[in-house]
Formats: sequence, structure tokens, C-alpha cells
Amino acid sequence: MSSDSTSSPTRFATEIYASRLAHAAEYAGQAGLDALLVTPGPDLQYLVGSRASSFERLICLVIPADGSSPTVIVPRIELAALQDSAVGDLGLVITDWVDGVSPYALVAAVLPSGAKTAVDDAMPALHFVPLAEKLGRTPILATAVLRQLRMSKDSAEIEALRRAGHAIDRVHARMGDFLRVGRTEAAVAHDIGAAIVEEGHTEAAFIIVGSGPHGADPHHEVSERIIEAGDVVVIDIGGPVAPGYNSDSTRTYVLGEPSAEVAKQYAVLERAQQAAVDAVRPGVRAETIDAAARDVLSAEGLGDVFLHRTGHGIGLSVHEEPYIVAGNDIELVEGMAFSIEPGIYFRGQWGARIEDIVIVTADGCESVNLRPHGLAVLPTT
Amino acid sequence: MSSDSTSSPTRFATEIYASRLAHAAEYAGQAGLDALLVTPGPDLQYLVGSRASSFERLICLVIPADGSSPTVIVPRIELAALQDSAVGDLGLVITDWVDGVSPYALVAAVLPSGAKTAVDDAMPALHFVPLAEKLGRTPILATAVLRQLRMSKDSAEIEALRRAGHAIDRVHARMGDFLRVGRTEAAVAHDIGAAIVEEGHTEAAFIIVGSGPHGADPHHEVSERIIEAGDVVVIDIGGPVAPGYNSDSTRTYVLGEPSAEVAKQYAVLERAQQAAVDAVRPGVRAETIDAAARDVLSAEGLGDVFLHRTGHGIGLSVHEEPYIVAGNDIELVEGMAFSIEPGIYFRGQWGARIEDIVIVTADGCESVNLRPHGLAVLPTT
Repeated sequence: MSSDSTSSPTRFATEIYASRLAHAAEYAGQAGLDALLVTPGPDLQYLVGSRASSFERLICLVIPADGSSPTVIVPRIELAALQDSAVGDLGLVITDWVDGVSPYALVAAVLPSGAKTAVDDAMPALHFVPLAEKLGRTPILATAVLRQLRMSKDSAEIEALRRAGHAIDRVHARMGDFLRVGRTEAAVAHDIGAAIVEEGHTEAAFIIVGSGPHGADPHHEVSERIIEAGDVVVIDIGGPVAPGYNSDSTRTYVLGEPSAEVAKQYAVLERAQQAAVDAVRPGVRAETIDAAARDVLSAEGLGDVFLHRTGHGIGLSVHEEPYIVAGNDIELVEGMAFSIEPGIYFRGQWGARIEDIVIVTADGCESVNLRPHGLAVLPTT
Repeated sequence: MSSDSTSSPTRFATEIYASRLAHAAEYAGQAGLDALLVTPGPDLQYLVGSRASSFERLICLVIPADGSSPTVIVPRIELAALQDSAVGDLGLVITDWVDGVSPYALVAAVLPSGAKTAVDDAMPALHFVPLAEKLGRTPILATAVLRQLRMSKDSAEIEALRRAGHAIDRVHARMGDFLRVGRTEAAVAHDIGAAIVEEGHTEAAFIIVGSGPHGADPHHEVSERIIEAGDVVVIDIGGPVAPGYNSDSTRTYVLGEPSAEVAKQYAVLERAQQAAVDAVRPGVRAETIDAAARDVLSAEGLGDVFLHRTGHGIGLSVHEEPYIVAGNDIELVEGMAFSIEPGIYFRGQWGARIEDIVIVTADGCESVNLRPHGLAVLPTT
């Protein structure tokens, strides 16, 4: 269940989707493709504002590269749900099918024989394999085509990311009410989940409460461990705000004053995160941002305890392109949105991470998260 | 967030998974395959009890058909989460990888050159396409191999499906508290969602409140429509109970006494649902069960308003094999679990559906849902 209020925008204006479809067709043509095939997931939501999902029954948006009208292949029982998206207003061709019919033949029927196609990342093998067989030619991934569109956010998307960022900031601002000595991580997470929704998200997509040694596992979620005085606690939380754009922000807390060792290592982490933020501007490579954080940590002997990439793109998906990782030589452009979240992890002891979402501007970046970066000291009583 | 209590079984005994892996390897060999490749989703959960999810970072269980030890390819930051599954106790080979490495090469490295492989239904194209390229041979679907295992439930699974069925029955039993004249569908759904969790589910996976004309759309979810006296309301709800088995049950309610027309058509639907249930026994084809319901409706002129198949398998997925649909000639065997859910839909007016989950027994079937089938009349004041 989502708790969308009816007053929230569940999708953007129809013209935005029309423009995206036109660009998708244009980029597909430039890539030498005949068509894009898009099934439910963030790409479909991006292109037509539909959050339809229908695992075993194929829904497929076919976007011809020649600019002719896209077609939506859809099970008849999902027709009404699809009409709630921009599909109804966009004047797309709709071909519905009923249980017992092969929808793959319907996709092939709107394509030229031997068509060169590309599919969205999320298309399950369940559909990919029979589609490839029916088309007589194996599709490639549409990732490279669609990321040209999805990576660079327009003003409406940036506004949604700001709303999401400010909403999750308000949850972090209330952390002293939730994170207390004697409570379990699960109890803390329960309260955080409620606060995420209260502060304007449609749901809590993920909640990490990594206390004490659990903070040393970057993807620990929650457990029945009881918070103790002196614990360093990593809180990494987020979720979507209408019409589907995500927040994702991490702060690290300590119950009582931190030890000198924790304070010293954390100060290095704070410098590393800032160095990466400071490196962001158009034209810089994604891998350079990763290196900016990593170099600060490595110089202080902490390179080996930074276990993951520096960040990931964010939008309709919590993780999407561009990935801020070694080896990714993509150049940043204005409007890209991604996390900067270096962390340090001492197995069996403690961990810390600082994460903001930033948006590339003409000469640097804007952070949508505005909470202080320092280790947040909470009372033990 | 899941609200799993720590006292609930989050997975079965390790021997169950060991047996499933051994059978999967055996069936893969019988199908002429060298290996199965399984990514996060219900197949991975079935085989090793892992609910890991990691969209863009590949997690892949490689099951060699020759019976040698399976290997799990996993991002290092997901290692701890994976150890919570049966993987740790099963003694599988674990190959972890870090951001920047190609995990597809790691999969290829544990397979013979030119290996014939099959993949799980849920593997996203994002992984399927580069895996196919790295393997040098396009995988086929593992659906046919794995459904031999997953379709027929063992006693622990049947017990979990019973618990799920009884839990959702308790929610339907409380419907008079939620479904009242003057409330919106969304408000009713909110209360149902809380009740689904209160009655023992780990979450509410889906909630359909189709009131009045909305009941005529089989996949309508919820809206701000206000329930009126005289409304016929379709309530289709469910979710998982630990360790992940789903409930799914529909009952149709009416606010005040139904009209003679509604009562008459509903009586036909009730006969149709019962006819399908009565037809279930080992050796009967899935399509025969579909026809049993459809024939009753068609004989009364309602064939055209029954817009979907009669049912779907259920277990770790809400929808899985066997599908109870025209053209599916699979023969039922003891232990199969599926829905029987005929419906009638009068566009712009009203709809009705009756849905139980049944499990095939030696000489018929057991329903895990025990609520009465009649149109449930609720007071208007």
C-alpha cells in the first residue's frame, strides 16, 4: 500500500512525457535501433508516468525510432490502471490482450521483421527470452539510450528530489526522539518508518539502523540488538515522494560523547565526503569524484576500510546511473543527481557513513540534504 | 520495513534447502543443462532461503547439474545479509566481488566453456544480457526445471500456506469494522492494511477495495471514492507470512440488502466457483478447472463478463505456476496450491469475485480459506 494523498502530484504534465518519448525515439535512432521495448519499472514510469506492475502478464511500451506513435501492449485487466498514467492523454496506440493469447507476437507485429531492439534494464528473463525468440533477434540493453535522458534531471524532477531531501532531513532532525539507549534497532526503525511517512514520503523504502558492531556492515538493516551507551550508530534512510522520486540520506550518531579514536577517524571521513562534494562540477568524470573521497581516506590509512563505491545516481530508482565508482569515466553534466556517501567500517567494532544527495549545477553542485555533517551526539539518558 | 517478529521462522531447516538444491541439480541434468543460474527473487528464496535483493549488483547462485557444490557470486557488501540465509549452513562456495569488478566473468569462471545454462524468471535484462555475452551462449529459462520443484508444496510449505490463509480469513472476519457507508476506499484499505499485519502477515502485499462501479475493474486498487449504501464491494487482499508464503483471498460485500439482480448473478458466480473447486483432483488438467468455472457462467450468459483466468499458483510468489487458464494442459498433482477466483464484471455498474486458495490432496483439494462464500451483507448504519 502506498499512502499517497490525493493532493500530491502522482505524475507530471503530459507534455513532459511527450517530450521524453520523442527524445527516447530520437536517441534510439541515433543508436541504430529500430525500437525500444519498455516493461514496468522505473523506465516505464519515467516515459509515461505509469507505475503499473504485472509480473507474469506482459505490459510493454514499444517506442519506434522513426518517430511514429508508440504502442502499449497490455493485458485487458490492466487497462484501467494504465489509463491513470499519461498513456491516456498521450494518444498512444493501445493493444490489449487476454489470458491465453501470446503477447510476444503482438509486440513482434508492430515491428519490422528482424528489428534491432533494446529493452529496459528491469525486463525479467521471463519476458526477455520469449521476446527474443519471437523477434528472431536478441535485444540489447537500452541502458545507454535511456540514461542520456534519465541521468540529467529536469526542473520538475529536481524540485521533487529537493522535496524528498528536505523530507528525509526532517526525519533525521527528529532522531533524538527515536534513537535511545535501551531500545532495539528494530524499535528505532519502526519509529523512523512512521516518521518517514509523516514527513511526506509515500512509503519507507529502506531503513538501516547499524548500531555498534553492526555499523561496520554497510548493508546491515536492523536487528534486535539493544542500543548501548557509547554506541556509534549509522542511520541510512529514504523513500519516494510523489510522483516517485527518492530520498536517501545517512547520518552517524553516537550515544554519549565519542571516544578520541572515533572522533579522530570520523573527522577524516567528514573531510573525505566534503572533498568529493567539492570536486563535483560539469565535465568532471564520475571516477574522479570517487577518487576525491578515497584519496583523503587513503592518505590517513583508511582506504582499506572504505568498502564500497562513493555513490550512485538517484531519481525514480534509489540506485541508478551515474554510479560514482572507479572505472566510470562518464563526464558529469548539469542536472545529474547522485549520492556522495563514503563510509569507514571497522569489523566487529563500529562504522560511520555520511551521505547527501547532490545535483550538479553550472559550476558545482547543490546538496538537497542540509543536516549538519558532524557526528551527532545524542544523550544517554 | 518488514515487521517480522524474531520468533517467526524466517526460513526452514537447512536439510530442506539441501534437498531442494540436490533436486534442482538433478532436474537440470535431466533437461540437458550444465547449470542453473539463479538471481534474487522467489527462486533464490526457495532454493537457499535468502531474501537478498541487490538490483544492479549481481548476486547469482550457480547450481551445477553434475551435483558438485553450488557457488554463490555475491557483492562483498551483501555477504553478511546472505549469511543470514541457509547459504552459511549449506557449505556453498562463496565468491565475493567488489565494486569495479565484472561479476559476469566470475560466473563464467565456474562453468565449462560453452555451458548450457538456464536462468530464473526474475533475472533482470540488466544481468541477463551481459551474462549471455560473457557465457558465449544465450541461457534459456529455468521455469520448466524449477516449477517441477516449486509447484508441488511440501508439508512445511503447506503449513505456511494454511497459516497465511487463516490469517487473511481473520481479516475478512473483521470487515464490518472497516467497510462502512461514508468512508473512502482508501480509508477502508488503510485499516485493512493494519489488520493484515495485526493478524500475522509480515506486510500487506496488495489491497483491492473495488466499490460500486470500481468493482467492475478486476485490478482496481483503491481510490477516494466514498462507499455508498447499496454498493457491492470487492475486497481482494493478501500478503506473506514468515518465511514468505502468501495469502490471497477475495470476498464480495454489499452495504445493505442486494438487489434481486445482484443476488441472482452472484448466485451463479458462487456455483461457478464451487464447480471449479469440485473439479480439482490429481490428474485433472489446469485448463479443465478453468473450464469448470467458465462453463457455469457461460450457461447463464455470463461468460463474457468473466474477464480473466480462473486462478494462479501461489507460494513464495503471489502469482506463480500452475496458472489455471485455458490452454494450460499441465496435470494437477498432490501438493499444488493455487487460487480459484472466478469473477463477474459489469462495466460502470458493479463486480463480484470469490477467491480461495486450494491445495491438491490425494482425492480432491483442501481450501485454506474457510470464510463463507455468500455475498456478505453489511449494515448501512
